[in-house]
Amino acid sequence: MKFNRIGALSAPSIGVLLAAMACIGCGPQQTAQVSQAPASSTADLMKQRGLNEADVSAALQTYTPTGKKDTYLTFASGGHGGNMIVIGVPSMRILKYVGVFTPEPWQGYGYGDQSNAVLEGGSRFGKEMTWGDMHHPALSETNGEFDGKFVFVNDKANARIAVVDLHDFVTKEIVTSTLIQSDHGATFVTPNTEYVVESSQYPAPLGGGYAPIEEYQDKYRGAVIFWKFDREKGRIDRAKSFAMELPPYMQDLADAGKLASEGWVFINSFNTEMSWGGTMEGNPPMESGASQNDMDYLHIIDLKKAEAVRNAGKTTKIAGMDVISLETTNAEGLLHLVGEPKSPHGVDVTPDGKELVVSGKLDTHATVYSFEKLKGLIDAKKYEGKDQYGVPILPFADSIRGQVEIGLGPLHTQYDDKGNAYTSVFIESTVAKWSLKDLKVLEKVKVHYNVGHIVAAEGDTVSPDGGYLIAMNKWALDRFSKVGPLLPQNFQLININSEPMQLIYDMPLPLGEPHYAQMIKADKLDPVDVYKPAGYDVVTDEPNPNAVTAGKERIEREGKDVHVYMTSVRSHFTPDIVRVKKGDTVHLHITNVEQAHDATHGFTVGSYNVHSSLEPGKHVDITFTADREGTFPFYCTEFCSALHLEMAGYLLVEPS
Amino acid sequence: MKFNRIGALSAPSIGVLLAAMACIGCGPQQTAQVSQAPASSTADLMKQRGLNEADVSAALQTYTPTGKKDTYLTFASGGHGGNMIVIGVPSMRILKYVGVFTPEPWQGYGYGDQSNAVLEGGSRFGKEMTWGDMHHPALSETNGEFDGKFVFVNDKANARIAVVDLHDFVTKEIVTSTLIQSDHGATFVTPNTEYVVESSQYPAPLGGGYAPIEEYQDKYRGAVIFWKFDREKGRIDRAKSFAMELPPYMQDLADAGKLASEGWVFINSFNTEMSWGGTMEGNPPMESGASQNDMDYLHIIDLKKAEAVRNAGKTTKIAGMDVISLETTNAEGLLHLVGEPKSPHGVDVTPDGKELVVSGKLDTHATVYSFEKLKGLIDAKKYEGKDQYGVPILPFADSIRGQVEIGLGPLHTQYDDKGNAYTSVFIESTVAKWSLKDLKVLEKVKVHYNVGHIVAAEGDTVSPDGGYLIAMNKWALDRFSKVGPLLPQNFQLININSEPMQLIYDMPLPLGEPHYAQMIKADKLDPVDVYKPAGYDVVTDEPNPNAVTAGKERIEREGKDVHVYMTSVRSHFTPDIVRVKKGDTVHLHITNVEQAHDATHGFTVGSYNVHSSLEPGKHVDITFTADREGTFPFYCTEFCSALHLEMAGYLLVEPS
Repeated sequence: MKFNRIGALSAPSIGVLLAAMACIGCGPQQTAQVSQAPASSTADLMKQRGLNEADVSAALQTYTPTGKKDTYLTFASGGHGGNMIVIGVPSMRILKYVGVFTPEPWQGYGYGDQSNAVLEGGSRFGKEMTWGDMHHPALSETNGEFDGKFVFVNDKANARIAVVDLHDFVTKEIVTSTLIQSDHGATFVTPNTEYVVESSQYPAPLGGGYAPIEEYQDKYRGAVIFWKFDREKGRIDRAKSFAMELPPYMQDLADAGKLASEGWVFINSFNTEMSWGGTMEGNPPMESGASQNDMDYLHIIDLKKAEAVRNAGKTTKIAGMDVISLETTNAEGLLHLVGEPKSPHGVDVTPDGKELVVSGKLDTHATVYSFEKLKGLIDAKKYEGKDQYGVPILPFADSIRGQVEIGLGPLHTQYDDKGNAYTSVFIESTVAKWSLKDLKVLEKVKVHYNVGHIVAAEGDTVSPDGGYLIAMNKWALDRFSKVGPLLPQNFQLININSEPMQLIYDMPLPLGEPHYAQMIKADKLDPVDVYKPAGYDVVTDEPNPNAVTAGKERIEREGKDVHVYMTSVRSHFTPDIVRVKKGDTVHLHITNVEQAHDATHGFTVGSYNVHSSLEPGKHVDITFTADREGTFPFYCTEFCSALHLEMAGYLLVEPS
Repeated sequence: MKFNRIGALSAPSIGVLLAAMACIGCGPQQTAQVSQAPASSTADLMKQRGLNEADVSAALQTYTPTGKKDTYLTFASGGHGGNMIVIGVPSMRILKYVGVFTPEPWQGYGYGDQSNAVLEGGSRFGKEMTWGDMHHPALSETNGEFDGKFVFVNDKANARIAVVDLHDFVTKEIVTSTLIQSDHGATFVTPNTEYVVESSQYPAPLGGGYAPIEEYQDKYRGAVIFWKFDREKGRIDRAKSFAMELPPYMQDLADAGKLASEGWVFINSFNTEMSWGGTMEGNPPMESGASQNDMDYLHIIDLKKAEAVRNAGKTTKIAGMDVISLETTNAEGLLHLVGEPKSPHGVDVTPDGKELVVSGKLDTHATVYSFEKLKGLIDAKKYEGKDQYGVPILPFADSIRGQVEIGLGPLHTQYDDKGNAYTSVFIESTVAKWSLKDLKVLEKVKVHYNVGHIVAAEGDTVSPDGGYLIAMNKWALDRFSKVGPLLPQNFQLININSEPMQLIYDMPLPLGEPHYAQMIKADKLDPVDVYKPAGYDVVTDEPNPNAVTAGKERIEREGKDVHVYMTSVRSHFTPDIVRVKKGDTVHLHITNVEQAHDATHGFTVGSYNVHSSLEPGKHVDITFTADREGTFPFYCTEFCSALHLEMAGYLLVEPS
């Protein structure tokens, strides 16, 4: 090429530029011209933007300036997105989506060997599940306090549980048992994270077989699985996990006892009528069939005793899982029922573990059960009868301390540090604050609209913080700019320290439907910035045996298997030319040898459905068949440096 | 079951509750207890949260109280997430992710027949692509103004283009041609959206074949595809689309001429050195090999003339696409080159269409080309030579009005309503404001860190708005609470009306890496709230022939095909019991007969990888093989009503 060199341009030499680029990440350079932000008049801005005094207060309670950090992190389920959401509080900014049940290409999750293995671990009936319906995250606990080490989540649609390690915010494991066909009372953890609780929602024959729906009462069952967590390994210990058969009611939310009630597990249920629909066959629809009785059953499980029964070998293998039968359960006294006002949703153990609050969506009360009373009735075997499966039923009136008239459609309760409870009221679209001591509603705050769960700061622990509460609203309607018929959900942040309570932020949820969340002090988390040393396998949490160091890159052929040992560093993949034959199996072993914070690269080969996110120090393996001859560019998918676009190469698939 | 009825509970009857539930969406009920938000002291809050005067100003400029709407919507690419992001400005809240190249289960996108067909339309070499790397969204334009009707996006990894219809924010079509193997100069639209421009990035043999890398200069080529958009149909007209062969430089960003330059298209390039790496074979790495020359080539394409040439049939078919060869291009004078300082990134036509601003990432300037001068040189055939492919090269010095010394690593330029240009400066981590008239830098504002693109309010149109500009920063480092080695990106909102410019918001990007965005006045958009009448097919935008109305639900068997005509409405699927035999093909035809705003249901069958989002009025078809006998619950995945959990049924797969 012939160019007239234009001296007047005085462009710096590439050497100077590359030196400057080495400074990326050291922070912006100071220049005399850089502006300082001005202060504008509060009154002018209020007028201009139509803000009132309460808005100003709310703005200043939530606005988090550049570089300042949030006080809390909220871990919310991503609902039918199948991912988990990390939200800063009070700014209500989404800091991260974590891929869990659904492939997430930007994380390389489900597009390379390591994460494919995690997803395959969640296969059911030999088939990989391609998405999930996440409902309830549970942070790991130590002595009933969130410890910031792990978070567990469930997939209602496919009855699965996943483990996310908060040392790097990566999903390490998905477990499932075809014992059950859906779950909802999941996940909940015991106070030292010994067990992760997963209970079924829609009854089915245990183990995944077929049975006529007409034999529902005989052949269909619920179950609760106690997944044993090995904290040392950070993984579920399948061999030590076990399950209990339950009657074919629709078990709903659960909670683990704590302090006074530690060692016990509580599970709500609805549809104790055992309706199964069949409207086109002349039956009542399930939503009315399941709403006939005034009372449903709270399940009270003696987990310590169940563990002993299981350890004594009194179990049956179903779908590879050790299951305590209902017969054994009854013989050993592991399960008791007590009435709860019709169609309850949430069961929430109080911070001191002494009481349980249950709200029925077709009842207007929060019902406060006394664990001491329940335990007394159990010990005294004071039953009002047994259900048709032989499970003893405790007398309701003797089990409760009292009830609070909350309003229409109370669902779920959280706690603060001052002895107050907060219950979401779905049909009213309010959150009710009430006194646990006095069982009196103190105040309600409007939310918009159709609140489901609520979450308060550390509100599930033995020592809630108060301060912030989020109403997780299902409908958004007129709250936000229109974005088509499919609307966001709306998380509304409420200051519960203020009297009256103050709604301070509306946060649209842009994908999926979060069902529940937990809110933890941000300073309890201490994730790593980079993987050290480079070559880290994020699934085994060990150095990967195929890790590559700079200078040791190579391509090795073994028959039709081509192993490519590759490194990435700003701004190059080595090797950058990979030659294979059509039909070869290509094994890419890529180590990002960067050790600088945020020096993430991405890797893809065009048209081959391959993608990796290469955080600093991470190693990935990618395997695929070069099934088409051609010339396929590969490149870095993260804007890593000024010469990022040049961080590319070619996979050359020659004719075989 | 035997319960003692507890009269004291005074629970309302189900009738009362169902009546109350019918009011859902009518807004919360007024109750005397509902609190009013208080005003807190500004000074107290500033002290408590460590806010200074500038923070207060920024907070009040961005905070958007409940129910108030944002002024602008920003459409950002989701990068390697393969989805598109809709962000409200100034609140910087994410309102929606729109599934485009990657399946999105919460939208049912890729989990049912309609959307599967859209994704299959983007197959390459007969293989469905499972993700995308989205870079540059382009809003549809009328007379060079955003019209709010459509947005187009690209997939760099797999060389694809998608059409999203803003009447419902749904992806309607994905098109691709194996003519090219990657794209980057995509998508950009002509001022009346006649064409959507897609140009390649990494050269390869046209059509997807293999050629030895050593024959790069002979056998590898770039190309630009002009996808004809049929606005009436809202779809790409493949038959009227065509392409032009380009030299094997790495074509980068593009822009369409407007007003003075309408009918022309401009494409940057780097690596005019035609380096292809091969470091392990003794060659220089691409990032230095591609940075040897002081100048690369701006491509100037006479689109009107190219269209005429194509209409005259002077094309060759490659990969099913009508392609104008380089030989024809040169013979017809369709393409001219002009030098541009080394390794440019952005080429941005000024609002009046009279000038083009090019910034070279390895040069410190913004270079301002005069379209009038370029046109004059072309008309006069005043060349300084031709490249080795016979493409004429215009003299650089005669093409420009001047240059502005911007700083280290200028990338991309936007415009305001006052004659100013704004250029992102990657290595410095600043945004430079400069006068188009005077070609002088006026001011810089720091950003954190490594800014790529920037977007100003309507900054790509013939009449930019000024006011807001977003710096799309690649690294976040210390800006947010730690969420592991994989950090969010950071969008920083800047008030560019203020003097000096004021950085007013930090917004973490929780998934994917947005590369570019466009910002449009929110009131230009008017999406529908519900699909009317019920039975709407969101891919054909017509009533679906399988649409079901209430009372016409049925199950029809045709051999081994079972057709289930189902409706959804709060709180029931009809039918709720579906009986098939193992091996049957199940065809679910589901119409959400709701017509209330936000009355969305979801549908899944456990363990069958099936999920739909059923917005009000939407119809979906789902086909799968009942390949395993068993008892599979199906249920509504959107918390739609108080009896949502009861909105369920069973797929019974009987032994065959």
